[in-house]
Amino acid sequence: MNTQIVDFINTNRDRYVEELKGWLAIPSISALPEHVGDVRRAAEWAASEMTRAGLGNVRLIDTPGNPVVYGEWLGAPGAPTILYYGHYDVQPVDPLDLWQSPPFEATVREGEIYARGASDDKGQVFMHFKAIEAHMKQTGRLPVNFKVILEGEEEVGSRNLDPFIRAHKDLLQADVVVISDTGMFDRNVPSLCYGLRGLSYFQIDLRGTSTDLHSGTYGGAVANPAFVLAQMLAQMKDRGGRIKIPGFYDDVRPLSEAEREEFKKLPFNEKQYRKAIGAPRLFGETGYSTMERASARPTFEVNGLLSGFTGEGAKTVLPAVAMAKVSMRLVPNQDPEKIGDLFEAYVKKITPKTVEVKVTRMHGGKPWMASLDNPYVQAAGRAIQTGFGQAPVFMREGGSIPVVATFQEVLGLPSVLFGVGLPDDRIHAPNEKLDLANFHNGIIASAVLYEEIAAVQR
Amino acid sequence: MNTQIVDFINTNRDRYVEELKGWLAIPSISALPEHVGDVRRAAEWAASEMTRAGLGNVRLIDTPGNPVVYGEWLGAPGAPTILYYGHYDVQPVDPLDLWQSPPFEATVREGEIYARGASDDKGQVFMHFKAIEAHMKQTGRLPVNFKVILEGEEEVGSRNLDPFIRAHKDLLQADVVVISDTGMFDRNVPSLCYGLRGLSYFQIDLRGTSTDLHSGTYGGAVANPAFVLAQMLAQMKDRGGRIKIPGFYDDVRPLSEAEREEFKKLPFNEKQYRKAIGAPRLFGETGYSTMERASARPTFEVNGLLSGFTGEGAKTVLPAVAMAKVSMRLVPNQDPEKIGDLFEAYVKKITPKTVEVKVTRMHGGKPWMASLDNPYVQAAGRAIQTGFGQAPVFMREGGSIPVVATFQEVLGLPSVLFGVGLPDDRIHAPNEKLDLANFHNGIIASAVLYEEIAAVQR
Repeated sequence: MNTQIVDFINTNRDRYVEELKGWLAIPSISALPEHVGDVRRAAEWAASEMTRAGLGNVRLIDTPGNPVVYGEWLGAPGAPTILYYGHYDVQPVDPLDLWQSPPFEATVREGEIYARGASDDKGQVFMHFKAIEAHMKQTGRLPVNFKVILEGEEEVGSRNLDPFIRAHKDLLQADVVVISDTGMFDRNVPSLCYGLRGLSYFQIDLRGTSTDLHSGTYGGAVANPAFVLAQMLAQMKDRGGRIKIPGFYDDVRPLSEAEREEFKKLPFNEKQYRKAIGAPRLFGETGYSTMERASARPTFEVNGLLSGFTGEGAKTVLPAVAMAKVSMRLVPNQDPEKIGDLFEAYVKKITPKTVEVKVTRMHGGKPWMASLDNPYVQAAGRAIQTGFGQAPVFMREGGSIPVVATFQEVLGLPSVLFGVGLPDDRIHAPNEKLDLANFHNGIIASAVLYEEIAAVQR
Repeated sequence: MNTQIVDFINTNRDRYVEELKGWLAIPSISALPEHVGDVRRAAEWAASEMTRAGLGNVRLIDTPGNPVVYGEWLGAPGAPTILYYGHYDVQPVDPLDLWQSPPFEATVREGEIYARGASDDKGQVFMHFKAIEAHMKQTGRLPVNFKVILEGEEEVGSRNLDPFIRAHKDLLQADVVVISDTGMFDRNVPSLCYGLRGLSYFQIDLRGTSTDLHSGTYGGAVANPAFVLAQMLAQMKDRGGRIKIPGFYDDVRPLSEAEREEFKKLPFNEKQYRKAIGAPRLFGETGYSTMERASARPTFEVNGLLSGFTGEGAKTVLPAVAMAKVSMRLVPNQDPEKIGDLFEAYVKKITPKTVEVKVTRMHGGKPWMASLDNPYVQAAGRAIQTGFGQAPVFMREGGSIPVVATFQEVLGLPSVLFGVGLPDDRIHAPNEKLDLANFHNGIIASAVLYEEIAAVQR
């Protein structure tokens, strides 16, 4: 490692924080139409910063929604090319009165910077801007070729990202994708994420009668769709938490012994975990640990239920309709389309003839997993060790970043998911923050990552 | 039967309709505070009308809510005393734009009078005012002693009625209660209701975690209260529609062969019934007919479900809480308090330790049933035969009129439920109406009923 670069980063810590505040001041809330100008301003701010850092050909590429910010440095012929992906849009901020300092006036308290977007994802993107800048300032170049794309619709479903990637296959050619939009397992536990779950989300609508009926006059004589819905949902999992949809587990890649060993190494404290979420007792699929259940095993969850009278008091209604939103988190090699077919077939099979059923496919995303011995994953592991002074744990995340599967599928690229967020960063909630020690170590690790990737034998 | 009285009634048909319009014009909606003045106005209108009809000692008796209208005629010493119960308040009228004529401008179309309260219950109460008047005008007396109480809170739960009855036991002493607040089995099928179901209504609240969680991060690792709720509700009834709460059926009086014969006589058309409610197929407890299921067997119904995200689209939330409103219709001799205890014990037994549960008792009412050979019931049967020219069917209703059980329990009085509403009267809905032929025949039947009751050997 070039110690000049590390020294440069270490001496510029305060400047980095001040600069980051400028970006965090822009309320680029993609979910709210009144902020569309702010969203574009955040894109322009990123573009200027990328140019300042030393990237070239920087520009905003329009999409049907918010623009993608693109920039590149291609001065290392023969070396690998990194495609860096991040996002410059942020979540809404309500309830505003729960924020201890204004969400768009970044404030440092006890080594953490508080602002909307600090952890998700501006702070983590900015880490790479500064790693690039450090290389450029000290050596006038990068050890790898570099392409950046930042999207402005990650918080609203990335609907224009897949088409953008498909339409710019040549522009985006690279060797590996780097993303810093995930978290560490815990404070002082630097982590490398090598797997993500996919998603299949559905709405089930049942209709029993044409209108709500009086439960006195008709109760007992006709099927109650709310009760039928309960009966149907109860048939989705057995008492041991195993999903009963026929064929559901057919394509699940079993956890390897090596992976299970990695899971056992995670410094997991069940009591702390349970207390943090306020659960009387944990529960999950028989035969797996909590961490395995939460990231490496597929799930079936009810996300919403609605039927009949839900106000204060009592209304003796026999509901005409009942609705459930349900979703499955998927693991390699489950395919959301195939799971959707299996689910629909099962729902139709278990729906009694007393009600009409409609299944709506809401959205889906493929699961993703890197091989633990992938050379880029290993390179990232070494970079984190240098940046944080300790070897990372290798973990899988339970959530979904569908674009990772798209990069694999459309561009044929593996991804390295190196994130420095903490579980208590409160992304999507009031008082979002980023730990500044992680931020600084992350800049060093990023700078090292580029060198490590340069050294990978392709 | 005194033919003078019948003739008088027959020659006054048009006048009755015009007079009734005056009462129906008062929007006595007890659920809406802005109508409190109208509610009182409707009570005063009834009081004047009762005085005009020939009752004495007419007055409004205040309660913590709307007043009870009281009136009496006690000029037949030695004869039985009827206690007539009805209500002068009405349901709200929204959605107003679905009314074909204004709800408080009663309009006659094709032999039916359309207005809020026409069937439930002003029209049916007015039937008795006119029967009393006919007796008085033609004979200067009634064949029985007569007491009337009309309440103004029937549509909002009658919360002050039970205390009123308990506080006025002496005033309300009588031999039999007469109520006209029910319906006929069908057009041209005059009916006498000899049974009502009771009610036990509950809310179940489950909590899995202290806040909603991300279904990616935590899905699979913790119990989902919406799913647990579905599992629990599914355990309330078996596939044959039989309720699984231990002890639930212990006090159910079996249907007698005589009763089942009466049920078989009802002119029930399953296809018509199914089409009217728009159900793909009927369903109910194995071993019973639809009419038995809807009125003479107890039920378990889900009245409402709410959990998690219920808006448009998809939100990957793992809900913290889930809620169900459930209720049971009860039949003799089930007791709502005892059923409440059995239900709570069962809920607690089947709640897994992974969630916290709270059961709230919302309200309850006792079932009621008269003996088919009760002399007052038989007297009413003869009166209906005279009024409608055909013998009534004897039926049980699936709904609840808790005050009927109170009259039995507090005053020791049997009730006669003689109603002339039709199943398509749309009570509680837009375009409520009352069939004028039933209204007129009902006045005659009421006048005859008083004579028949006078002849009952006590």
